[in-house]
Amino acid sequence: MITLHTQRQAQRYVPAVRPLLATGLLFAYCAVFATSSLAWDEVVEKQVFEMEEFTTQGGETIEDLAVGWEAYGTLNDARDNVILITHFFSGTSNAAGSYSEDGEPTGYWDAIIGPGKALDTDKYYIISSDTLVNLNAHAANVTTTGPASINPQTGEPWGLDFPVVTIRDFVEVQKALLESQDIDQLHAFMGASMGALQAIEWATAYPQQVERLIPVIGSGVADPWLLATLSSWAAPIRLDPNWNEGDYYEGEPPLDGLKEALKLVTLNANHWEWANQTFDRSWAEEDADPAEDINARYAIEKTLDDIAAARAEQADANHLLYLVKANQTFIAGHGDSLEEGLAAITAPTLMLYSENDLVFSPSGVRRTAELIEAGGAEVELQTLEGNRGHLDGVVAIEQAEAQLRDFLGR
Amino acid sequence: MITLHTQRQAQRYVPAVRPLLATGLLFAYCAVFATSSLAWDEVVEKQVFEMEEFTTQGGETIEDLAVGWEAYGTLNDARDNVILITHFFSGTSNAAGSYSEDGEPTGYWDAIIGPGKALDTDKYYIISSDTLVNLNAHAANVTTTGPASINPQTGEPWGLDFPVVTIRDFVEVQKALLESQDIDQLHAFMGASMGALQAIEWATAYPQQVERLIPVIGSGVADPWLLATLSSWAAPIRLDPNWNEGDYYEGEPPLDGLKEALKLVTLNANHWEWANQTFDRSWAEEDADPAEDINARYAIEKTLDDIAAARAEQADANHLLYLVKANQTFIAGHGDSLEEGLAAITAPTLMLYSENDLVFSPSGVRRTAELIEAGGAEVELQTLEGNRGHLDGVVAIEQAEAQLRDFLGR
Repeated sequence: MITLHTQRQAQRYVPAVRPLLATGLLFAYCAVFATSSLAWDEVVEKQVFEMEEFTTQGGETIEDLAVGWEAYGTLNDARDNVILITHFFSGTSNAAGSYSEDGEPTGYWDAIIGPGKALDTDKYYIISSDTLVNLNAHAANVTTTGPASINPQTGEPWGLDFPVVTIRDFVEVQKALLESQDIDQLHAFMGASMGALQAIEWATAYPQQVERLIPVIGSGVADPWLLATLSSWAAPIRLDPNWNEGDYYEGEPPLDGLKEALKLVTLNANHWEWANQTFDRSWAEEDADPAEDINARYAIEKTLDDIAAARAEQADANHLLYLVKANQTFIAGHGDSLEEGLAAITAPTLMLYSENDLVFSPSGVRRTAELIEAGGAEVELQTLEGNRGHLDGVVAIEQAEAQLRDFLGR
Repeated sequence: MITLHTQRQAQRYVPAVRPLLATGLLFAYCAVFATSSLAWDEVVEKQVFEMEEFTTQGGETIEDLAVGWEAYGTLNDARDNVILITHFFSGTSNAAGSYSEDGEPTGYWDAIIGPGKALDTDKYYIISSDTLVNLNAHAANVTTTGPASINPQTGEPWGLDFPVVTIRDFVEVQKALLESQDIDQLHAFMGASMGALQAIEWATAYPQQVERLIPVIGSGVADPWLLATLSSWAAPIRLDPNWNEGDYYEGEPPLDGLKEALKLVTLNANHWEWANQTFDRSWAEEDADPAEDINARYAIEKTLDDIAAARAEQADANHLLYLVKANQTFIAGHGDSLEEGLAAITAPTLMLYSENDLVFSPSGVRRTAELIEAGGAEVELQTLEGNRGHLDGVVAIEQAEAQLRDFLGR
């Protein structure tokens, strides 16, 4: 049932001397080396994992499922040095490194993944995959299965006929991916935001397989605030007439709606400190005063529009709707009782979060920590500082480097 | 130039004995009387103030301008017992009392306006008006002038030909309204949110006329966070094909976009504590599991949709866009320097705000207080508690009753 699409090639760390010397940046190299802060500098090989058939938690069948994945470091002979990383709502598998020979690292957690770093590629085999219904369905390096994929039964894109999938479905696909590499034990499972939900779900469903759990900026349940926030992200797509009830693959996609949705994602994932420290009240166009023209914008509006437009080019609107639903349906353990769900976790747990998070309420994160602890597992709860709110769990993760290193080494 | 549309009738407080005795609620009456917490129980008479011509700060002319207004209490002979109240983004002039004989009070600040209350109708003449481009343009008791009004030059609704108006324009219309009643001095000026902007603007532009300033849940400038938040409220309307660049008065109005906009207003004006304490993860329909149907909703989504739909019936989409713009363009004093603008204020100032406000950043409110104080005025800054975030300045204002009473009595 499970096949591995491309041959996985072991990736070994080679010190980053060559490219740095080649460009004469010896001083820079030494400085970097001194802090042991080398980024993972192998060219990341994006690979594809396929399943002939997958049955969702809802009992629906998806044929010819495929998701992209990548890894950093080397799987040891005992196959017990694995760290699984799961990505956030708008993310991809690219947690570290670059896909091109001369590329700057593009991974969202480059700050903590690499030789000598907290997630030490000299020690660990770190694996990360694209989720089902990945937002960036049209990006070159992303492989995912969702409404934009061809339904083998019809030869047409699934559209809204694609079954609703859940965080647990994401977990089951990743579990199959790991099984295809004969991995059945995780040294650690770490994920940010939606990635934290997957980490928690795995540790709830298969507690004996997760040795250390690291949910970042996420909690054990989509609380009503998150239900409503996610709902607001879906709304602009449904308003766009091009959306056409999800049936747009042969026409114009609902780009305007998708852009507005992504603008809300960017805004909610940040915090006012970021907005107010990064922007001022400049106009978008020097000669278009918003006080004189109802259509004139401020610079921050234009910047958010531009970011959203760039992201929308690679994204799929239906996939966003399915991601909204996957996050909304999440409650650890899949039952009605959050207490019972989280009590199943046995792994020592390190939770990182921001008190300025506008997506996952800080009180919800703290409650999750309490319930995991009440179930008998050891829990450390650590705040992240910064001006990005929710996003500090992605862009400011470096501040947790020492704590992560210690937690992973115990 | 200025005409008063209807004759203002003096409104006097009559103790609320009659209706309570009539229904046999003597005990209730005594209990109410003991706490001096009677609501303003006169039938509120909504009146109309008209101007033949109004010139905006941008130099545009609006002919036949009209706004609704109402008052509680009696103007004294010296005409020096006036408190002006200005409303928030989605509000109307109805700060206290009811428009119908047998109606429950509907005013948003009934908790603090009435005989014996902090804004004591036995002492003060409290006046409140609808703003220009009021959101609820189609509500029975609202009179406003904006894009939905007829442009006397064309005989057609203005649509986007209506000039951009600013908080200062709102202030100038209210100033004309007060002048029509020979009032040139304000015992106090109090407003929530957008109402706070008007209060600050008046105290900045005409400092000698404002004796006490009470900005609630608002600050001296629309900071970049607010610019972006307001922008997100406008977006759904622009996405709705029925919006048609603002030209929809002879066709179908953009109700779907307006509803989504109002949903965002409700969500942003609240706080996760409210959402999580008020709602759970119930489904909207008992037999439609959101985990099985991409179109199925949770109860909180349905409630927010329903609230928005009810509000949308009375609202006008273009008016919302103009309100967004009026708020975005706001900087106290109308210049580039917030410091200079706020330094013009001389009135003793009481600022009330919530540390959980997701619309006006708490740091922005604190900064405003510092700058007013730096300009030489006395400032008191007081936090409001509750689970509503921004909205605690409206629905939980009662907690500031003693402080308001003291401040107004000095």
